[in-house]
Amino acid sequence: MADSRKLKLGFMLHGVGMGWGDWRHPDSQPDASTSFAYYKRQAQLAERAKFDFLFVADSVFITEKSSPHYLNRFEPLTILSALAGATSNIGLVATLTVSYSEPFNVARQFASLDHISGGRAGWNVVTSWLEGSAANFSKSSHLAHDTRYRLAGEYLDVVQGLWDSWEDDALVHDKASGVFFNRAKLHTLDHHGEFFQVRGPLNIARSAQGQPVIFQAGASEDGKNFAAARADAIFVHHENLEEGKAYYRDTKNRAAGLGRDPNDLFILPGIRPVIGSTEEEAERKYREFANLTSIENALSMLGRPFNDYNFLQHDLDGAFPDIGAHGANSNQSASNRILDTARRENLTLRQVALRFATPRTEFVGTPTQVADALQRWLEGRGSDGFVINVSLPKELEVFVETVVPILQERGIYRTEYEAETFRGNLGIPIPVNRYAAEIAAAAE
Amino acid sequence: MADSRKLKLGFMLHGVGMGWGDWRHPDSQPDASTSFAYYKRQAQLAERAKFDFLFVADSVFITEKSSPHYLNRFEPLTILSALAGATSNIGLVATLTVSYSEPFNVARQFASLDHISGGRAGWNVVTSWLEGSAANFSKSSHLAHDTRYRLAGEYLDVVQGLWDSWEDDALVHDKASGVFFNRAKLHTLDHHGEFFQVRGPLNIARSAQGQPVIFQAGASEDGKNFAAARADAIFVHHENLEEGKAYYRDTKNRAAGLGRDPNDLFILPGIRPVIGSTEEEAERKYREFANLTSIENALSMLGRPFNDYNFLQHDLDGAFPDIGAHGANSNQSASNRILDTARRENLTLRQVALRFATPRTEFVGTPTQVADALQRWLEGRGSDGFVINVSLPKELEVFVETVVPILQERGIYRTEYEAETFRGNLGIPIPVNRYAAEIAAAAE
Repeated sequence: MADSRKLKLGFMLHGVGMGWGDWRHPDSQPDASTSFAYYKRQAQLAERAKFDFLFVADSVFITEKSSPHYLNRFEPLTILSALAGATSNIGLVATLTVSYSEPFNVARQFASLDHISGGRAGWNVVTSWLEGSAANFSKSSHLAHDTRYRLAGEYLDVVQGLWDSWEDDALVHDKASGVFFNRAKLHTLDHHGEFFQVRGPLNIARSAQGQPVIFQAGASEDGKNFAAARADAIFVHHENLEEGKAYYRDTKNRAAGLGRDPNDLFILPGIRPVIGSTEEEAERKYREFANLTSIENALSMLGRPFNDYNFLQHDLDGAFPDIGAHGANSNQSASNRILDTARRENLTLRQVALRFATPRTEFVGTPTQVADALQRWLEGRGSDGFVINVSLPKELEVFVETVVPILQERGIYRTEYEAETFRGNLGIPIPVNRYAAEIAAAAE
Repeated sequence: MADSRKLKLGFMLHGVGMGWGDWRHPDSQPDASTSFAYYKRQAQLAERAKFDFLFVADSVFITEKSSPHYLNRFEPLTILSALAGATSNIGLVATLTVSYSEPFNVARQFASLDHISGGRAGWNVVTSWLEGSAANFSKSSHLAHDTRYRLAGEYLDVVQGLWDSWEDDALVHDKASGVFFNRAKLHTLDHHGEFFQVRGPLNIARSAQGQPVIFQAGASEDGKNFAAARADAIFVHHENLEEGKAYYRDTKNRAAGLGRDPNDLFILPGIRPVIGSTEEEAERKYREFANLTSIENALSMLGRPFNDYNFLQHDLDGAFPDIGAHGANSNQSASNRILDTARRENLTLRQVALRFATPRTEFVGTPTQVADALQRWLEGRGSDGFVINVSLPKELEVFVETVVPILQERGIYRTEYEAETFRGNLGIPIPVNRYAAEIAAAAE
């Protein structure tokens, strides 16, 4: 039987591009990170190309050493709410940390975005990994890595529980009798847990897609288990297809082992395609980007997943320093990936810094070469699709105009949206309200 | 010298109308509270009529006894962000409690809305007054009334401090030199207070209006002092013009006493106009609304500012019961207003309940009578304008088409927006960044 899976595509929506260098490119718009006109144009372009979703990353702590795309940018829920009104089919995925927010507020804001957009909201559930974040939230220290994931699980229990406060047919609106809602179909969560005590009910009903779609982006052991159990989609980063395949197999097996249909869990690596009309043009464009990042800035970026470790103190052309412990409570998946690569390929500090500042991947090439690579990953079961992350306004246009038509011609990417909700376009079911399910089960 | 003040008008944006009865009206749209199409239509209509702002109320706690407009509705920041993209000049005021949120998150979301809208955000700072709210936020009890206002003051210090993290010319975006921002113009708040410890800086720059406009809605003694010191506008409720004048005089004096220009503080009572082409039609419409609320529902609404006190246990036609203490830590201004009225006019419980469910004010009448009343309040210095709160979709249309032209003809209301920012349209200055001000002072 032929593989009928199609690529799921997300677009990483941001302003000045990632890292330290991209904003310096002649074609960049350095004030894009707070330009609604810019976000709207990009969002509408991604929707015309039938992308599954827009993805907005986030962080809640900066210092004067942070790179430009962290320093000044929209908050995800507000900008995606604004874009909900300017789009009609594309999913809207906001990153939001469980470490420094209240589940009641977060449940409400996502449910509200879900209603505004007619059922297109998604939540990328993260546990903040920057030590400094605590200082912005009246906390003396950041939670330990394993505690953060335990908290994340309970947090999600609360939010999803609140999202089910109202059964789908609870609001009857009977003007004649004066019955606004059916009291038997409004439910109080009454959650009492290790981290949270939340009564409910939520003051907003379920949306057209039942509940927002859940994304997860942690790739540590804790993160993988969390994702396999709870996520609809995983945003991940891989060095190469072999790594992707191993991760894919492992994660889908974990999901299946938990009784889930592994096809309902999408694994979506983030990639940065660089497309030229010829191979030479693509290579030239890639080098142009790479040259925009100074070695100082590359080292600064490298230090981020190691709690802002200062790599400048080491010999640039010596072996990569052994500093494993600095990442212990930080972004484990990113820091381990760096350490593994340095060790495996025996790289110098300078080589590692430049490699991670502007990774040279198989997604640099002509439109056909890039389409081939996407197809290779899809059919090789290295991924179910991708989150496309480009650095310049017009690079999305290039992808949409040159690569998307090839994917469509090959029948591995949609030519029209299947539905108006995000779940509908992903082809995953609307979750049955837990209380309705309980009642149905009791009646059997 | 003639009084050149013009009316400032806000529109209270909500779905099914206030109270228990409005949604039952034949012309109501009972699912309006989560209909983006409905909100957008009303917002654009208010903007065509040159309203200063849209106002979205809020609460963070419901029970099955709550009235329909509380039960199921949009969250203010998300819906106003969506409306930012659908409007161009009107201010966008979101209510948000300081009791159950983190100032860093709130500062970010309002700053983000302010950027999305090009400088049109406003924050109605409230301290939640429903005892039950604590149970939705892992708290065992609600803060006492005076503590809440101390906390609100510190909270606002933090948020406004974070909003000044970036001086207006901090982002230089110099591609050639690689300088994204001027480090001397990025400031770390480093707040250490009684309730909050917040480092900063905020990861978003100041907007076109410098900082969002501050609204305040508490009318207790603490609330009045807070407003006189910190607010740009006060949303208030009065029984009649005499009460309005006394409040106006008192509050403006308090502001002047604190060294502020009292003209930079707008006092805006909420009113519910009921307009008919004749007096009889207006009266008929008023009675139609009043009859939609049952006595049981009227009693339930009455109980809300008294910590959901159950008035059903008392004789409906006896004197209003003496239950003052039940409101001590709740919505003091609302409960005191009810107690004062009952005592002053010697009303029965039934009379009080029906009066407050559907108040009969001087804003019921023909377009000319309503315009006269608005002008009387403006010129009598009972207010600087109003927050218009209508119950049916088409009542805004009626106000816009019949009353607004009269106000414009009389020269007491704008015919065109003066500016693109909310502050610009209110005619209040852009606040100077505190750090730039310090530096300017030091240089003198």
